[in-house]
Amino acid sequence: MTYCVGLMLNKGLVFMSDTRTNSGIDNISTFRKMFTWEVPGERAITLMTAGNLATTQSVVSLLEERSKEPAARQPGILEAKSMFQVATLVGNTLKEVIATHAEVGQRADATFNATMILGGQVAGGEPRLFLIYPEGNFIEASFDTPYFQIGETKYGRPILVRAYEPDLSFEAAIKLLLVSFDSTIKANLSVSLPLDVHVYRRDGLKIGRQFRIQQNDPYFEEVSSGWGIALRDAFGHLPDFTFPEETD
Amino acid sequence: MTYCVGLMLNKGLVFMSDTRTNSGIDNISTFRKMFTWEVPGERAITLMTAGNLATTQSVVSLLEERSKEPAARQPGILEAKSMFQVATLVGNTLKEVIATHAEVGQRADATFNATMILGGQVAGGEPRLFLIYPEGNFIEASFDTPYFQIGETKYGRPILVRAYEPDLSFEAAIKLLLVSFDSTIKANLSVSLPLDVHVYRRDGLKIGRQFRIQQNDPYFEEVSSGWGIALRDAFGHLPDFTFPEETD
Repeated sequence: MTYCVGLMLNKGLVFMSDTRTNSGIDNISTFRKMFTWEVPGERAITLMTAGNLATTQSVVSLLEERSKEPAARQPGILEAKSMFQVATLVGNTLKEVIATHAEVGQRADATFNATMILGGQVAGGEPRLFLIYPEGNFIEASFDTPYFQIGETKYGRPILVRAYEPDLSFEAAIKLLLVSFDSTIKANLSVSLPLDVHVYRRDGLKIGRQFRIQQNDPYFEEVSSGWGIALRDAFGHLPDFTFPEETD
Repeated sequence: MTYCVGLMLNKGLVFMSDTRTNSGIDNISTFRKMFTWEVPGERAITLMTAGNLATTQSVVSLLEERSKEPAARQPGILEAKSMFQVATLVGNTLKEVIATHAEVGQRADATFNATMILGGQVAGGEPRLFLIYPEGNFIEASFDTPYFQIGETKYGRPILVRAYEPDLSFEAAIKLLLVSFDSTIKANLSVSLPLDVHVYRRDGLKIGRQFRIQQNDPYFEEVSSGWGIALRDAFGHLPDFTFPEETD
């Protein structure tokens, strides 16, 4: 499984993805699930993937090949005129890859499905964030739904629901994402460090800060243990239930 | 969907279940998912159900009919000699009901599966807590895994992982469960109030405090809003991330 989150903030976009892949629980590997493209001064694009690894790698390869061959049939990810066009291209590529594998060859136990978060900015437009479905269609983040999660999304959702604010600083947003990832990692073996992070500053039109949070990262450990203590403390301060009056 | 949790504490057992059932999102009803049986001074048994409602109601009806007819082929839930025997009876009944509907009649879109949490005490034994699978087999809670969840389990799991302690008071345990239910209800439309609660005191050998937490319950609202504030507060007190030194 996988856990990836893309946040839309007033200041820009923040992406975080884990790196664990598994085929069964005894075949675990580390693969990058975050991919970036840029034309400095003109566009910066980030893609995060969840689902069948053969499908997602194939999609990324096709997107990169297309970006290298200007004569390709469809406009490449570096030439699309808007983020909407980029999302359409990624969605169509994803749908084609799934269709190719689903229709021919051996049947697989698992499906070839994949889901993706796409975000970025093309000069002349706003920063945009999309969730792309295996069917190739997509939805866009808005003021009402300003973040997307893919993969193992449930454990880490409550804290996002409670603590997300559009005016978070990048530093606070990374903290929020680490708390959300920590809750997921604590509960689910299929999500694990290292974590890839990309912070895209609005109107930067280039790849921003990009780094990997490794196993044993001291800040992650501080957040993880500090959050455990803070939760128990907050829990302790809530008033206990009192039983309704009755003779027992 | 559904959310039910059974906690094993030093003081006894605490059960909480929601009451929402849905067949699609436009066909929502309220059904009790917690069932209790007792022979005062001799046994007290609680069953919570998740899954296909026809299956779970059928299982409960069969269990109750059997408990009313001493001449039935298998020992009823009120006659089994131990909680292990009760779990075996419930598991077998569940497996039979699923098999009956799965093998004959029209095919259904959804499966007939159901999962159950069974807990209680029979005189001479300890309080026991079981998770019963649709296949009819079951596992028992232990010191290492002192609680079970069924239904929509993921949203409410992180707080259980962090704040459960075996020596919680009943009052604190109900607070913990309400926080866990609140996280789930906030994130998932298919889980909703009212909530049924049963608190079984170790060696009580009778049904303990049993009550329903209604929509707009003031304590639930206090926990829900207080927890949101406490979480944001705890989050604010964690140190923010600091970017690694680099020229930007």
